[in-house]
Amino acid sequence: MGALRLPSLTLFAAAAATAATAAAAPPLSSRFPASSLLILRRHQRRRVPRLISKPFASISSELSTRSADEKAHSPPPLEEEEAENDERRRRRQEGFISSRSQDFNGWYLDVIANAELADYGPVRGTMVIRPYGYAIWEAIQDYLNVKFKETGHSNMYFPQFIPYSFIEKEASHVEGFSPELALVTIGGGKELEEKLVVRPTSETIVNHMFTQWIHSHRDLPLMVNQWANVTRWEMRTKPFVRTLEFLWQEGHTAHATPEEAEKEALQMINIYEKFAYDQAAIPVITGRKSKVETFAGASRTYTIEAMMGDRKALQAGTSHNLGQNFSRAFGTQFTDESGQRQLVWQTSWAISTRFVGGIIMTHGDDTGLMLPPRIAPIQVVIVPIWKKADEKSMVLNAALSVEKELKTSGIKVKLDDSEQRTPGWKFNFWEMKGVPVRIEIGPRDVSSGTLVISRRDVPGKQGKVFGVSMESSTLIAYVKDKLDEIQSSLLQKAITFRDSNIVDVSSYSELKEAISQGKWARGPWSASDAEELKVKVETGATIRCFPFEQPNGTKKCLMTGNSAEEVAIFAKSY
Amino acid sequence: MGALRLPSLTLFAAAAATAATAAAAPPLSSRFPASSLLILRRHQRRRVPRLISKPFASISSELSTRSADEKAHSPPPLEEEEAENDERRRRRQEGFISSRSQDFNGWYLDVIANAELADYGPVRGTMVIRPYGYAIWEAIQDYLNVKFKETGHSNMYFPQFIPYSFIEKEASHVEGFSPELALVTIGGGKELEEKLVVRPTSETIVNHMFTQWIHSHRDLPLMVNQWANVTRWEMRTKPFVRTLEFLWQEGHTAHATPEEAEKEALQMINIYEKFAYDQAAIPVITGRKSKVETFAGASRTYTIEAMMGDRKALQAGTSHNLGQNFSRAFGTQFTDESGQRQLVWQTSWAISTRFVGGIIMTHGDDTGLMLPPRIAPIQVVIVPIWKKADEKSMVLNAALSVEKELKTSGIKVKLDDSEQRTPGWKFNFWEMKGVPVRIEIGPRDVSSGTLVISRRDVPGKQGKVFGVSMESSTLIAYVKDKLDEIQSSLLQKAITFRDSNIVDVSSYSELKEAISQGKWARGPWSASDAEELKVKVETGATIRCFPFEQPNGTKKCLMTGNSAEEVAIFAKSY
Repeated sequence: MGALRLPSLTLFAAAAATAATAAAAPPLSSRFPASSLLILRRHQRRRVPRLISKPFASISSELSTRSADEKAHSPPPLEEEEAENDERRRRRQEGFISSRSQDFNGWYLDVIANAELADYGPVRGTMVIRPYGYAIWEAIQDYLNVKFKETGHSNMYFPQFIPYSFIEKEASHVEGFSPELALVTIGGGKELEEKLVVRPTSETIVNHMFTQWIHSHRDLPLMVNQWANVTRWEMRTKPFVRTLEFLWQEGHTAHATPEEAEKEALQMINIYEKFAYDQAAIPVITGRKSKVETFAGASRTYTIEAMMGDRKALQAGTSHNLGQNFSRAFGTQFTDESGQRQLVWQTSWAISTRFVGGIIMTHGDDTGLMLPPRIAPIQVVIVPIWKKADEKSMVLNAALSVEKELKTSGIKVKLDDSEQRTPGWKFNFWEMKGVPVRIEIGPRDVSSGTLVISRRDVPGKQGKVFGVSMESSTLIAYVKDKLDEIQSSLLQKAITFRDSNIVDVSSYSELKEAISQGKWARGPWSASDAEELKVKVETGATIRCFPFEQPNGTKKCLMTGNSAEEVAIFAKSY
Repeated sequence: MGALRLPSLTLFAAAAATAATAAAAPPLSSRFPASSLLILRRHQRRRVPRLISKPFASISSELSTRSADEKAHSPPPLEEEEAENDERRRRRQEGFISSRSQDFNGWYLDVIANAELADYGPVRGTMVIRPYGYAIWEAIQDYLNVKFKETGHSNMYFPQFIPYSFIEKEASHVEGFSPELALVTIGGGKELEEKLVVRPTSETIVNHMFTQWIHSHRDLPLMVNQWANVTRWEMRTKPFVRTLEFLWQEGHTAHATPEEAEKEALQMINIYEKFAYDQAAIPVITGRKSKVETFAGASRTYTIEAMMGDRKALQAGTSHNLGQNFSRAFGTQFTDESGQRQLVWQTSWAISTRFVGGIIMTHGDDTGLMLPPRIAPIQVVIVPIWKKADEKSMVLNAALSVEKELKTSGIKVKLDDSEQRTPGWKFNFWEMKGVPVRIEIGPRDVSSGTLVISRRDVPGKQGKVFGVSMESSTLIAYVKDKLDEIQSSLLQKAITFRDSNIVDVSSYSELKEAISQGKWARGPWSASDAEELKVKVETGATIRCFPFEQPNGTKKCLMTGNSAEEVAIFAKSY
């Protein structure tokens, strides 16, 4: 599964594919040349796991990138990082949020803490997803779950403990992926005969079960999904984006023909794309991974790539056409209509809590979070304003009645009637929490039967409309319009940002220039895997995808000058 | 958390409570005298973990009970059990379902296999929840999730890895619970400095986090819930009822006063009770656990107890008033309105996938599963019937149109139009799967604009109504009525069964007589803990609860003859 595909697991999968095709060559990492991977591994291994220390502490904006060249350098001493983090923690307690433009990573961590999206778990690299952050994940689940079912998938649940032998069955080079596995070795007070892997992804156990359930072509297609937790022993973690344990859905399907599997893989990436645009207001670029970047158990990997506020790419969801690689390794066969035994054709696809990180890093500003209305846990916050005691009940009654009307019409509304805080404090607080619309009701508004509406995405007076009628149907229509407007506006803003940061390049020097400016480079590409890896080593950028949307006309490869079928997009990424 | 409360974890909690109250005495098991528990442990430890062998294989109906006396006996040799299971597997492949009255456990396992509710995972004691079984769990989730939110709880997610020291912090006698823990000792290819516990329940990590989030009385109440997987290293497993990993929800709340915590614990057990009656048609008996049976970290445990088809009790959900036991152990304090630091008052409550087992074992008959309409993944199955080719399209068109109408009106309907199977085969198959209503449509029905409706719960012609109008609104109203009728009828049948198997007793000999007949005994009880344990050792029955619903009048304890405040219910249990 590639939603959070990372070097060592990619290698694991590469090894799997190697095993599956019975090739004797050493596994090729899909993202790193073997040499740089080895360097990386060695560095990772030198670090002593700090179990109950300050988690996520080792993150600085420079280090949180996962590009190969950076990872090949030694990490800074731990003490320094922790000091940096203590300082941040102190400032955060005073409500401080770092400048988004000057310290994007600091801003990200401040927003997560102040908006109460997540907190650090007691074990290094683990994350507690707090109610406000979890509600965003629930909005993602609610939408996708319906789409999965509409397209014929059933939810189910596979155990999270996988016999170590299953992993070995797939990968002759255990060392290649073992750095990312958590192993249960003691159960019921006894040393286990066989270690158990806490699932990093479920292809192996899924195929083990599919092999028992699939007999004839009548059992196909078999299309299932699970919502589950997964564990990958990450060295450098970052809330939502990369954590030791995370939540995701993983779809797994088996088909009788390669055409059906390909159609399914495309269908699912299209569902992810539609979700990203329509719900999360994230204008992802959808496309096919290069051979080097393909999930190594797959024939093809499709991806949605999102541009974050710092212009790094986030792989936000992937869908794999697995071909027969896993069915070959596990003997997952069916009897076709002519009575022949055949291997099934498979897909897998995943989106994870990483997407919540993508939402934070796409929208938002120096004030804090900015949530697209369709995935916002609270779409409208009502702040009642009064000074004198006799104004209070009048204002509160009006606020309660507005709350009730909006709620009845299906709008997610919160009335903040707490008396501990001033209206000004509440304005700031809910802006920081990214609530799209604020309604203010004061005594004069009540007298005139109106209220004030403020948009989160348009700061100051420009985003404020006075004198909006309190009359139920008028108000509801007005608020719904406003929410739609904000939804579109966030998407449009993100599209503009994205497009102004993608540079069309026709040579390697242009590509290098674009990447050095922090932008994405788009240019024709038909060069070799080795040349692709060279780009990565020299610039830190990788091919994010060959986008589905391609320009017309003949093209010449930016690297070789040879003719090229397609343009590719290069970028640094999370 | 007590939904699946079992001896060793109970001991763990007992130890926790002991630690919390700083008592030096050895922990008292809440369910077993220390001596019998030790015997049990020793037997469990003698068994070699069979990791990748045939899981659930060691279950026979006699052995699947967890009562103390039975557990103190040696288990039969493994070979014997596996042979028994191979035989069952062979018969099952021929569609055989054991007689419910003669071999209840065999019937249960056959139904789970044939109705494709669950399968065995590759690791001993783990379970794959298949789509049809998972859909029942989703129906449980959908209902409860709404109720939890309506009552002010937010969903969130805590990491599943808990530092071993957290567990130690709570329990001075690690040996007491370690038999049920799965431990991660290797992460990222390295031996960990501190072992990690794969959560068996989350009170420790929840309190660790609560302690960071709760500062003032304004932070209270804090009311959260998580839907998660949990792991307990069970020796004797049984699909849904007791598995090494299972799914559940666990609610955790913190309050400023003991009254609020008590109110919350009662509110949640009432929600569980209402769910059991209204949705699952299971007439649970709600009550308070005896001191011996109380979750040992709790001041009070409330429970819903269900009578299974074999008249054993199933603890189907629990809600604990934890008092200040965990807040004391973790220092979870708040500043009250007068500026004083106080420990919070807490609750926790859980329902798990065990409940699916309860649904299977409450309803159902020799034919197979029988699902209450409100939690049935498929409420209506349509079986079209034709012989000649020219009848086919006519019948199928009518069936498709009926399917569409029912679906539009919100009924969960499945049209079985496969041509591989005869209508007779389909009748049997969907009856075995427990679908409440079957609609049959043949050529003559189409001509007359009618169809045939069969009830799953009324066998043969008695449950069949011919000539039901196909006219949309009439049909929809008729089917909805029928579903409601079946829902009520299943509940009524279960109530009748329950009530005819509860015997009012006024002496210990009457109690023993009732238990030996496999029934539940209800009688006044004010005797000591020692006498309660004596009942368990001598009869295998435990106090399931002191039911909320109590008879009027003065009572004399069935054991001592002293006056008693309440009647208790005694039964053997899962």
